[in-house]
Amino acid sequence: MLKHWQGHRRLTRRVIEAFPEDELFSFSVGSMRPFGVLAMELISMGAPMVRGIVTGDWDSGTREPRPRQEVLRLWDEGTIEINDLWPQIAPERFEQTITAFGQFEGIVHDLILYVIDNEIHHRAQGYVYLRALGTPPPPFYERH
Amino acid sequence: MLKHWQGHRRLTRRVIEAFPEDELFSFSVGSMRPFGVLAMELISMGAPMVRGIVTGDWDSGTREPRPRQEVLRLWDEGTIEINDLWPQIAPERFEQTITAFGQFEGIVHDLILYVIDNEIHHRAQGYVYLRALGTPPPPFYERH
Repeated sequence: MLKHWQGHRRLTRRVIEAFPEDELFSFSVGSMRPFGVLAMELISMGAPMVRGIVTGDWDSGTREPRPRQEVLRLWDEGTIEINDLWPQIAPERFEQTITAFGQFEGIVHDLILYVIDNEIHHRAQGYVYLRALGTPPPPFYERH
Repeated sequence: MLKHWQGHRRLTRRVIEAFPEDELFSFSVGSMRPFGVLAMELISMGAPMVRGIVTGDWDSGTREPRPRQEVLRLWDEGTIEINDLWPQIAPERFEQTITAFGQFEGIVHDLILYVIDNEIHHRAQGYVYLRALGTPPPPFYERH
């Protein structure tokens, strides 16, 4: 599951990287949120979800707009934190029911899956924005 | 995995259903494929993937445009076929390496996951199209 997720995270990072800096927190289609806002949402859900599962600390951090390089830096920090914390999730922990971030009740396995699905969902929004901006997005199937 | 996928399939069905009939195979953003074309791709990958895994028959069916009701009918047929065939996938089968549709080599588990991820990805494109058309898409978190 970690390997699968980190493959997706590498692709999402490429989409953030491909996004024109001046459009990251301004461009949108159909009055939806700009991709930078979505990327900050993903950052506030990924590592914080794993941290919460392992430590019980449910702080989700900031979602304020910032330069693309800063978004990428936070992304990379999250990647390292997820890799570091993951081995501390015991197999039986994945089956336990918890309340994430004080409001989302669910089985640990399903909560992590929701974070991954949400990342795929919002990243795809980024694909459409990139196409609308005339920037080719990275191939969906490349995860290395 | 089946339960998770069928939750996603219920949501994707709602997005097809919400799409205006006259825009299904024509509307797009950034020169991407219309949502009807994407829905037909998903139909040609979902049940056919499971059928191939179980029977070795890798026919992926047609992708021709058709009325929304026909797309939904094919979707529902796929849902039933997936449910019927799934119990025939033995636990050890999920770990085997196969070549799907004569061209995609991978472990069965990963191939099914790819089909699910691809569905989330293209459905999210449909979300943006719907928003651009002024039609509110169904909530992402509702899977019942």
